[in-house]
Amino acid sequence: MQLFYNSQLNKGSTIFTLDREESKHVFKVLRKKIGDDISITDGRGNLYNGNINHITSNRCDLDINFVKATPPLSYQLHIAIAPTKMNDRMEWFLEKATEMGISRITPILCDHSERNKINLERFNRIIVSAMKQSLQFHKPLLDELTNFDDFLKMKITAKKYIAHCEELDKIHLKNSIKAEESTVILIGPEGDFSIQEIEKALLQEFKPVSLGKTRLRTETAGIYTAALLNMINS
Amino acid sequence: MQLFYNSQLNKGSTIFTLDREESKHVFKVLRKKIGDDISITDGRGNLYNGNINHITSNRCDLDINFVKATPPLSYQLHIAIAPTKMNDRMEWFLEKATEMGISRITPILCDHSERNKINLERFNRIIVSAMKQSLQFHKPLLDELTNFDDFLKMKITAKKYIAHCEELDKIHLKNSIKAEESTVILIGPEGDFSIQEIEKALLQEFKPVSLGKTRLRTETAGIYTAALLNMINS
Repeated sequence: MQLFYNSQLNKGSTIFTLDREESKHVFKVLRKKIGDDISITDGRGNLYNGNINHITSNRCDLDINFVKATPPLSYQLHIAIAPTKMNDRMEWFLEKATEMGISRITPILCDHSERNKINLERFNRIIVSAMKQSLQFHKPLLDELTNFDDFLKMKITAKKYIAHCEELDKIHLKNSIKAEESTVILIGPEGDFSIQEIEKALLQEFKPVSLGKTRLRTETAGIYTAALLNMINS
Repeated sequence: MQLFYNSQLNKGSTIFTLDREESKHVFKVLRKKIGDDISITDGRGNLYNGNINHITSNRCDLDINFVKATPPLSYQLHIAIAPTKMNDRMEWFLEKATEMGISRITPILCDHSERNKINLERFNRIIVSAMKQSLQFHKPLLDELTNFDDFLKMKITAKKYIAHCEELDKIHLKNSIKAEESTVILIGPEGDFSIQEIEKALLQEFKPVSLGKTRLRTETAGIYTAALLNMINS
């Protein structure tokens, strides 16, 4: 099964035209013909069937039928992470975390951050691609780059954790998180969170956690966290 | 701490000359001077201190002292995985699995494999780089590309698992693996293992396991498995 994505679809949709790039893909790569079906999601849990009624190399018109709705998780798996200096490392994290079923990602700007600009549009494209690839119908929410202090001020009802490398009392994340519980985890930049940031997070009742014995890169810590959240909820 | 690697060192070493590239790095990037120390591992668990007694832009001579030996794990964490069509995806797996403390990786050639050649030297360089980055002293063992059938013929005393996507009775990997137990897990190519391969593995007492609800890419399945092996042993 190959899954397409378009956020403009809704349960009332009856006809739809794929964009130029997707039309080309359907025509040239998938070699679909009039009468063939394709599957589309709106990224909000809904799956649609599109029956091709017109196709050329740059235009594909579809008759749309709503197929089914997948309810969202009753809990939110949320990672707030400092974008890495090398952009591709952050992009790998986005792809892998999406495949593993994360529900929300907040890029955060920290005292030791080595990147203070992100390309939100590109990040979203990577997330959409990974969502389609892994056959999921809910697009993870991607926030704008958020200042660490502003993030702490947000109203968060989830269980809160901070993964830092300082030699403080910490228990392993696997012994902290619970299944079907909304969870948010802070992952710092390569140079770790500053002591001040850690103190501020602890004051806001973020629980310090460890991610094992080896020193993980930022994006590895993020992927490891996404794997553990997936594992605990599988 | 920055860690260097050289497999030629041994406990009897008293002097050592870094290679040209490493010498350049120590001189130009780290800006080390005569009398400064650097840390080196031989990838077999041993850590050495190197005290610089001569340094130019392309040569760095060291007085070597053995510092400590880290014993190997009493168990082996082994992933046998089909290299991905896109080489960078396999390379990301190698890096992340090394960071997460895997002990052995066997690239396997399967019925549905889309890659039948690998660059072992390049793969080893990536593993060494990840080992140094994550401050580990044991270099994971990397096998040559091995035919699936030949792999099954190998004498394996570890607990054996196969992660496949067929709709057969499977339990989640997290409910199968145990701490401090030698484990080998087979991960198939993008097109999954063939039915014949799955049957052969089951005959050899590989236990079928699932890696959760979402469809993971090959390298993601590998990283997820490495994360779970790390988690269970943390």
